[in-house]
Amino acid sequence: MIGTAPRTTTAGVGPVGGALPAARTRPLPAAAVRLGASGLLGRWQERNAAATLPHCLDALETSGALDNLRRLLDPADPDHHAGPYRGFNFADSDVHKTLEAVAWESARAGAPRHEDEVRRVVDLLRRVQAPSGYLDSHVLGSDGTDGSAGAAPSPEPYADLRWGHELYVLGHLAQAGVARARATGQDDLLDVALAWADDVVARLAAGEELVCGHPEVESALVELYRESGDPAYREAARRMLELRGHGRLGSGPFEPAYHQDATPVRDADEVAGHAVRQLYLLAGVVDLYLETGEEALLAAAAAQWDDAHGRRTYVTGGMGSRHKDESFGDPFELPPDRAYAESCAGVASVLWDWRMLLATGEARYADSLEHALLNVVAAATSTDGTAFFYSNPLQVRTGHDGADEYQASGRRGWFACACCPPNLARLVATLHTMVATRDADDGALAVHLYADADLDADLEADLGAGTAAGDVVRLAMRTGYPWDGDVVLTADAPSPVPLALRLPGWADVARTRLDVDGEPVDVAAALDARGYLRVGAGARRVRLSLPMEPRAIGAHPHVDAVRGCVALARGPVVHCLEQVDHPGVVLEDVTLDLAAGLEVGPADDALGVGATLVGTGRATPSEGLPLYRDVNIDATPDDAPVEATDLQVRAVPYAVWGNRGEGPMRVWIPAAASLRPGDRRRSGR
Amino acid sequence: MIGTAPRTTTAGVGPVGGALPAARTRPLPAAAVRLGASGLLGRWQERNAAATLPHCLDALETSGALDNLRRLLDPADPDHHAGPYRGFNFADSDVHKTLEAVAWESARAGAPRHEDEVRRVVDLLRRVQAPSGYLDSHVLGSDGTDGSAGAAPSPEPYADLRWGHELYVLGHLAQAGVARARATGQDDLLDVALAWADDVVARLAAGEELVCGHPEVESALVELYRESGDPAYREAARRMLELRGHGRLGSGPFEPAYHQDATPVRDADEVAGHAVRQLYLLAGVVDLYLETGEEALLAAAAAQWDDAHGRRTYVTGGMGSRHKDESFGDPFELPPDRAYAESCAGVASVLWDWRMLLATGEARYADSLEHALLNVVAAATSTDGTAFFYSNPLQVRTGHDGADEYQASGRRGWFACACCPPNLARLVATLHTMVATRDADDGALAVHLYADADLDADLEADLGAGTAAGDVVRLAMRTGYPWDGDVVLTADAPSPVPLALRLPGWADVARTRLDVDGEPVDVAAALDARGYLRVGAGARRVRLSLPMEPRAIGAHPHVDAVRGCVALARGPVVHCLEQVDHPGVVLEDVTLDLAAGLEVGPADDALGVGATLVGTGRATPSEGLPLYRDVNIDATPDDAPVEATDLQVRAVPYAVWGNRGEGPMRVWIPAAASLRPGDRRRSGR
Repeated sequence: MIGTAPRTTTAGVGPVGGALPAARTRPLPAAAVRLGASGLLGRWQERNAAATLPHCLDALETSGALDNLRRLLDPADPDHHAGPYRGFNFADSDVHKTLEAVAWESARAGAPRHEDEVRRVVDLLRRVQAPSGYLDSHVLGSDGTDGSAGAAPSPEPYADLRWGHELYVLGHLAQAGVARARATGQDDLLDVALAWADDVVARLAAGEELVCGHPEVESALVELYRESGDPAYREAARRMLELRGHGRLGSGPFEPAYHQDATPVRDADEVAGHAVRQLYLLAGVVDLYLETGEEALLAAAAAQWDDAHGRRTYVTGGMGSRHKDESFGDPFELPPDRAYAESCAGVASVLWDWRMLLATGEARYADSLEHALLNVVAAATSTDGTAFFYSNPLQVRTGHDGADEYQASGRRGWFACACCPPNLARLVATLHTMVATRDADDGALAVHLYADADLDADLEADLGAGTAAGDVVRLAMRTGYPWDGDVVLTADAPSPVPLALRLPGWADVARTRLDVDGEPVDVAAALDARGYLRVGAGARRVRLSLPMEPRAIGAHPHVDAVRGCVALARGPVVHCLEQVDHPGVVLEDVTLDLAAGLEVGPADDALGVGATLVGTGRATPSEGLPLYRDVNIDATPDDAPVEATDLQVRAVPYAVWGNRGEGPMRVWIPAAASLRPGDRRRSGR
Repeated sequence: MIGTAPRTTTAGVGPVGGALPAARTRPLPAAAVRLGASGLLGRWQERNAAATLPHCLDALETSGALDNLRRLLDPADPDHHAGPYRGFNFADSDVHKTLEAVAWESARAGAPRHEDEVRRVVDLLRRVQAPSGYLDSHVLGSDGTDGSAGAAPSPEPYADLRWGHELYVLGHLAQAGVARARATGQDDLLDVALAWADDVVARLAAGEELVCGHPEVESALVELYRESGDPAYREAARRMLELRGHGRLGSGPFEPAYHQDATPVRDADEVAGHAVRQLYLLAGVVDLYLETGEEALLAAAAAQWDDAHGRRTYVTGGMGSRHKDESFGDPFELPPDRAYAESCAGVASVLWDWRMLLATGEARYADSLEHALLNVVAAATSTDGTAFFYSNPLQVRTGHDGADEYQASGRRGWFACACCPPNLARLVATLHTMVATRDADDGALAVHLYADADLDADLEADLGAGTAAGDVVRLAMRTGYPWDGDVVLTADAPSPVPLALRLPGWADVARTRLDVDGEPVDVAAALDARGYLRVGAGARRVRLSLPMEPRAIGAHPHVDAVRGCVALARGPVVHCLEQVDHPGVVLEDVTLDLAAGLEVGPADDALGVGATLVGTGRATPSEGLPLYRDVNIDATPDDAPVEATDLQVRAVPYAVWGNRGEGPMRVWIPAAASLRPGDRRRSGR
């Protein structure tokens, strides 16, 4: 029986744990990397622990998510809650994601956190779990007449696979159980999840075609396999992936593509439909690849990754342009103002990138991971850690109506659909596990994220193959990255394994410097085909200097929405203009004078950023201009007389926008040179 | 009692009938203008009669809209329908709008059309009408458990004012009843509407706060007042307008602004929320002004008109940019690809413009009316009259997913929410009534729409003030407009009243010519403050020559979505590029060489257009370009090497796009000069 299979619990393992037979590079033990509290990532984790997690735990009470479970208790029970179900029908997942976040934070801290609260919740879950193992409070508590936001009443399990979200809830419960087992060695929550999962596995075995309208459980089932060693969970994931893509879920109000049910997963070569669903699904596809090595799975995922990143990703790393159905839009449909770019899509994109990186070892996936992390994902949380964006636009105009929480001008403490905050919390609690991995082929230690961190990897305990017995790597990584391009890695003894340092895609090879034990290295020669700078075993001190000049980024000409504009970046950090930094002018009237150059501006301690950007621009008043006007065909389309005010343009990291009150913001800035080709100041070039 | 008030039925009157005491210019009798079958507007009406109306009548059967009424009959009745309710909860309005369209078409034709079918439907409505007069089949047929698309089950009338649409349905029923009475003299349908309206009036009098989540009934009540002479209907409209704007409707899933319930109608100075609702509401506001002369109403409507047309209207006349909630977006948020621009919003915009024109006599409202009519409204229907767009994008990209009917790549025969087709039909059947009006001050005949038409206005029968007894104007208007700029008006006798000819806003005064009885007239001197060229009484032959050179249109710099692009127009007709006219290149790779000029191209008989536009462009292959790339800060943001193919660009009227198969289309075209300022072919200018 599944439930009695020998458990190979691996306390100390992080997300995507286990042997990962098909991986090109493998996670280190979760405790191998500790981020320093002075660096950006370390501070983020500290804030997550100190502010975001307690905030989420509080919200589980105030939102009704826990009461939704308590109402299933016997009315005589003192903990019974008598009120109606509250929130969306998948509100249980807010509980589970928060429990997962607490677990990973406990692992990071090296000691249980919020343990009393967690035990109470686990106990509550145990008490309301159906004898079958089923545990979705919306369905269990329904008498067939009470709807909830987002779904019709449905007293029978799995009666509404398209919208019921029950397997999605199971997935998050399973992720939480796995995290708690790995973080604390406690199997209590895992057992709750396994009881439900076993019923699902049995139903699949009996021929029930269980496939969820919101993918998530696929990854979770693979994690259950990793945790339990029982291949039934892996095969359940495979079965669910194979059931999908044939229209079984039906349609209404959205087409099958919304649920990734229009194309079989192995045949898909474009991302489609609801972005978060698509991205979770792809994470699950790669999870299955990591266990099975089935090339068709990785090939489909890679093709979709190329499509997503080549045609449907915002310059901030955001995905899913459309508000209407929270979907990926058409190719190159990337409006900055109407960017939906849900925070959860940012999280899911990172989870997918991480699995692609493990599967391939290729730097571009780590580039993307870092890019999404430091831009769209970081922006989703306020500097104090307790307010969040649901959607992440790249432009807010003067006069924006931000009344709706899905297009809010400012971050909010919680949401009717509260998927994002605990999702952010669970990801941030695991950031340290993404800093470095071990390559499967030669055992090299690959460093993906540059941060103030200490690595202490006892390679004997490493789960990867190719580890020499007794290998230990202790590295101190010191850097002010991403504000500073210098990264110094110091080993306490000559490294017994090679090192592989990611060369970010934005870094010009010719302007990158690498010193190993004081000797400069030919960077181009050190660069391997996967995008990493290779340093042979035996090194003690490595200094990587990345070029941190400000950059202006242009978009593919089919991205009509940003024609004639540039985005500003430095290193991996995308910047934006905020109205608050440009008093006296209308932000939409500002154009950037690219030819005047860009400088690195001072740090902003209040915003917690180590650098800003400064440039030269002009504000050309447009008030009173007609909405449309004839242009002189013999001239250029933007030949209005220029009565511009020169001004200094200040750009701050997109990650911290909206922390100084609400107001206009934009990532893509009209570039003066392209806007006004007839302007004498620009002509003759 | 209201129902027994003396009826002042005015057979022969068109929409917005009656004395209109506050009007600056008043409609002619509906039969005063007959559009010639050779002109664009006349052909449109003929197609509407021959193809669109029969199509709509058929669809009332196939969609279930009539069966929704028949299921209310006694089960023993042979006409009883036993099936469930079908469609959205306001599907009755499809019936009523179709009846209205048939009525106006009957008036236009001078004889009843589809009279047997109409009588059967009227009889059906009578038989299922509740004793109270209430007549919403979704509510009457509900047992409290059956939902319909769009609303929860609601067996009690007015239990769900926010989503119930019952008063909206009443409004369309009333419009149909009024149209039938005016067109045919038959009061049967009007009596059905009055019975329901009387109950609503009584409820309002009893203190019930009836205000509908979807405005429409306000205009209808004013029309009932005009038709019946009973001020109770006018006051009911006033009461409903005053109830609105105080949050009575509540919220969910959308904010009060969605329903125009956030701001009192007299205080509103911006359009907001669901576009069709907002536009119908504003038509109702101006209807009430036309009866009461209350300046606050007109001032609020005018401010909102300026906002809508100055910041939130597509160059095609489309309104309501957002798919998510079908709303006006933020100011200048006008993405061409994600333009929702619902066909019904185009219709409603015309209805609002028409009332603004009557209230003020100002040409800009007629300009807007004509512009919306000939572009977004015209585009909504296929050249064969039997397929329709629900939304009207200004760009369809290569790879567009048009599976959803709200963002379809091609027109469809009918819709789950079928508001648009009968709405288009009822408007088109009244186009002739918008050609000309009588000015209230001096009785001048004001010509707003240029078309092949015959005017035969017996001014004694005119409802307007200021008419000299015995005045008759018989004018033949001959023109190939909008394909040709020459308009010749010939009277059979010297006109007893002055003429006022609209000078379209796009027409340069200096290039416009006007001849009266063979003598050239100083156009600038003839132009009055309202935008009309005044011709004194006594003229027999007037020739207006409008400048029809192709024009390139640029947008306000805050319309970020079309930066660096131009739209092409000739006269009032906006054009677009279609892939089918540009074989061998990717449409999104095409830029227009503005400096090479634009020429008038040949007519296209298959498309039914009298002219096209031809220009010179280049196709620059972009395949393989990265989504984002660093641009050289010392150069321009679009300095990629140019490997362009020169090509002839062909633009067809937007009104006929999508009639030659599905494929990419765009209204806004990147202009080469602004796109590539560093290109040597453009530099040195």
